Amino acid sequence: MGDTKKRIAIDMDEVMADTLGKMIECYNRDYGDTITPERLHGKKLRHVAKCGDEVSRYFDDPLFMRDLKVMPDSQDVIRELQTRYEIFVASAAMEVPASFTAKYEWLQEHFPFIPATHIVFCGDKSIIDADYLIDDHAYQFARFRGQGILFTASHNVFEDRYPRVGSWREVADLFLK
Amino acid sequence: MGDTKKRIAIDMDEVMADTLGKMIECYNRDYGDTITPERLHGKKLRHVAKCGDEVSRYFDDPLFMRDLKVMPDSQDVIRELQTRYEIFVASAAMEVPASFTAKYEWLQEHFPFIPATHIVFCGDKSIIDADYLIDDHAYQFARFRGQGILFTASHNVFEDRYPRVGSWREVADLFLK
Repeated sequence: MGDTKKRIAIDMDEVMADTLGKMIECYNRDYGDTITPERLHGKKLRHVAKCGDEVSRYFDDPLFMRDLKVMPDSQDVIRELQTRYEIFVASAAMEVPASFTAKYEWLQEHFPFIPATHIVFCGDKSIIDADYLIDDHAYQFARFRGQGILFTASHNVFEDRYPRVGSWREVADLFLK
Repeated sequence: MGDTKKRIAIDMDEVMADTLGKMIECYNRDYGDTITPERLHGKKLRHVAKCGDEVSRYFDDPLFMRDLKVMPDSQDVIRELQTRYEIFVASAAMEVPASFTAKYEWLQEHFPFIPATHIVFCGDKSIIDADYLIDDHAYQFARFRGQGILFTASHNVFEDRYPRVGSWREVADLFLK
């Protein structure tokens, strides 16, 4: 019975998909820079990029999201989580409307075991009715009715208000032990 | 304070947008038929169309949703609802992934006062955390945690398990009096 399972909503960018990795790769290539994720400790790419906010323009390409790398272990762990929880993907896709189709196709390719009924493209995630939300953005937890679980990303390392997981192995430890 | 307002989630197709109207129009034109919404009393178009389920193929056109008519009074009433409720649009867009962009653009054009943060494209609407859901599909209410309000459509006239509204004027009567 789906109804008796607790529900986990999972963010996509920087949790299931390595969005930042591709951003840095494109940026370094186009601007001749050598930024690494480690160097962003506590900052966003736009704060250290030579081009500033312009770096977000990579999102304007409707295909940018289509070939992101899958975060290590996310497929195996999510598949296992599905045996004990009801799993939804909750992506703040409204921030980048051009990416809808690419995001959907990416999920179909890499997470075909998550049914389309359980994919949500939204903006403000307080609309998500779940027991847990695994997300790299703490601001999404403010009005969320369940428990926020912060997935470590370089921009959130100084955030200390929420339980934190640093990898999908740690997600497994938290939910499957 | 957004947090103190009750929340209403509103379905898009056949509630904000006259999806069926355009379907019937296209079908009658292409198949030389004269179906009217009234003749569908209790049935879906695919049950009476000469082409059966094939009629759903109109959705395959990514632009099909782009020029739907706005349901009478929906703009005025939703704008007024926003003064007393927090309003989200919740569309089961995952059923027709090709329609994401057209749906989003349609909302931007006709409901520019609904911020992108408050638009949700989903499948199973039990993921929606709202006090009310106005929808023409009763099956979406089964696991929804709030109160379902059935918006009358020809296919749901025999459904009697939920409070019903027959127009946006009736929505106003229910929520704004």
